[in-house]
Amino acid sequence: MNKAPRQTKAARVRRWTGGDLGPAEGDRVAVEEPLEIRVDTRPVAISMRTPGHDEELAVGFLVGEGVLVRRTDLKDIRLYARNADGNVLDVFLADGTACDLATLSRNVVGSSSCGLCGAASIAAIRKKFPTVRGRFEVAAEVLSSLPGKLAEGQAGFASTGGLHAAALFTESGELLAIREDIGRHNAVDKIVGRGFLDGRLPLDNGILMVSGRVSFEIIQKALAAGIAFIAAVSAPSSLAVEFARESGLTLAGFVREGRFNVYSGGSRISAGKRRSVVKRNRSANGRAFR
Amino acid sequence: MNKAPRQTKAARVRRWTGGDLGPAEGDRVAVEEPLEIRVDTRPVAISMRTPGHDEELAVGFLVGEGVLVRRTDLKDIRLYARNADGNVLDVFLADGTACDLATLSRNVVGSSSCGLCGAASIAAIRKKFPTVRGRFEVAAEVLSSLPGKLAEGQAGFASTGGLHAAALFTESGELLAIREDIGRHNAVDKIVGRGFLDGRLPLDNGILMVSGRVSFEIIQKALAAGIAFIAAVSAPSSLAVEFARESGLTLAGFVREGRFNVYSGGSRISAGKRRSVVKRNRSANGRAFR
Repeated sequence: MNKAPRQTKAARVRRWTGGDLGPAEGDRVAVEEPLEIRVDTRPVAISMRTPGHDEELAVGFLVGEGVLVRRTDLKDIRLYARNADGNVLDVFLADGTACDLATLSRNVVGSSSCGLCGAASIAAIRKKFPTVRGRFEVAAEVLSSLPGKLAEGQAGFASTGGLHAAALFTESGELLAIREDIGRHNAVDKIVGRGFLDGRLPLDNGILMVSGRVSFEIIQKALAAGIAFIAAVSAPSSLAVEFARESGLTLAGFVREGRFNVYSGGSRISAGKRRSVVKRNRSANGRAFR
Repeated sequence: MNKAPRQTKAARVRRWTGGDLGPAEGDRVAVEEPLEIRVDTRPVAISMRTPGHDEELAVGFLVGEGVLVRRTDLKDIRLYARNADGNVLDVFLADGTACDLATLSRNVVGSSSCGLCGAASIAAIRKKFPTVRGRFEVAAEVLSSLPGKLAEGQAGFASTGGLHAAALFTESGELLAIREDIGRHNAVDKIVGRGFLDGRLPLDNGILMVSGRVSFEIIQKALAAGIAFIAAVSAPSSLAVEFARESGLTLAGFVREGRFNVYSGGSRISAGKRRSVVKRNRSANGRAFR
């Protein structure tokens, strides 16, 4: 378990560009492997993820589920290889920290014996987190510069085309952390998990940038971490827009090619004439993540 | 419930392209709403999906899980609105059809009372379906023509940029069915569900085309439906490639811009000199889906 996990691996590929189907050299694919996450030895989720930063993934997932709130809620994490089919990660909660497994919302699959009833299940999806508190402004030019900085950090995507990314930036566009994963949600979990492990939550003065789309679940994870600003390279869903508005969260989509759309919380973006009111509070949290 | 469900909806948006942040007219987002799927009145999953073809989604999901195998396993489906937060769909199995909920694999979340243990959970992910039987060849030129045909059917994506698509084509490139959804897996479930409801499984003489990436789970869903050929606009994961090879499934990725990569099952693709051996068995199933 001491060697660095592989995020990409070589693949034998034949390529067609017209003519014959010939061998292609040097092709790589993104690694996908199952990770079983257990809480106090009880299995709660299997994540199909790209290995690496597994502790962050597990912790970030549990923050998103509302299980972990304060740094002191976490007692210990142990990652170990089960067999060739995947790894197992144990999260141990501090004494007195409750984990009501029946309320875990992520693609819930349970039997009737889990205590899930229909009404509770639907309601569980729309968890209530505190309304966003972050008060800062991001200049439109800074926002439009983020995709380029994101792409520079996407080494895995560059070699495979198969990895999503999530990153945290300061309000002035400085990169604090970036994570890549085969799963969109996993990349966000890893960012949130890193912040939790470093005692930096709420991440209410940073911008969460994602390489793809924004669904309801991404908003939920952001809110759990206190994030006030999400920027996405691609489109948001209807529910993501509604939830962002209800929660006071800034949501910008199609942030690419020198332009963007604002779906919610435009008061955190300064552009054109409003540039004169830009106030920058250099945040105490403005140092890069590990 | 008689009106057609909305796949996209209008969104109030402000757009920045340099200068001021101004209102943008006519912007639309992809609709995302929860659907609770119940089997014999027991809740088994909540799908964050784009409304429409919900019966196909539920049935296709249960085919992928190995719960529904033969058309006669399904007794009835009832879809109804619960409230503003979402819909509920009841699937009733034929007498004698077993649904072992503990073996459902999709992002399993359960309590210890569900009977899930770690070893069983990991193993459950790698379900064994019969090795692929489909014997046919697709000309490389036909394969490279599919992305254009897929894009023509992606009305929701064209208006929102936020919907994935899955489609089924004949070996000669004729479109049989296309479905769009906010979730990659959901679009595939809907295609498989349509095939199941029409009594067409196994879909072993068609090409499943997806608009995005191919993960392990997409391969599993394809195998459950007997699909022998997957073409993807984007990248496959390492596990998708391994699983496709083990199962004798043809997997082509980066099928776009007049080229593609073949990761598995290249014998079903005829190109260059091998074009002379192309045999086309006009399939009895070559009529379009409803």
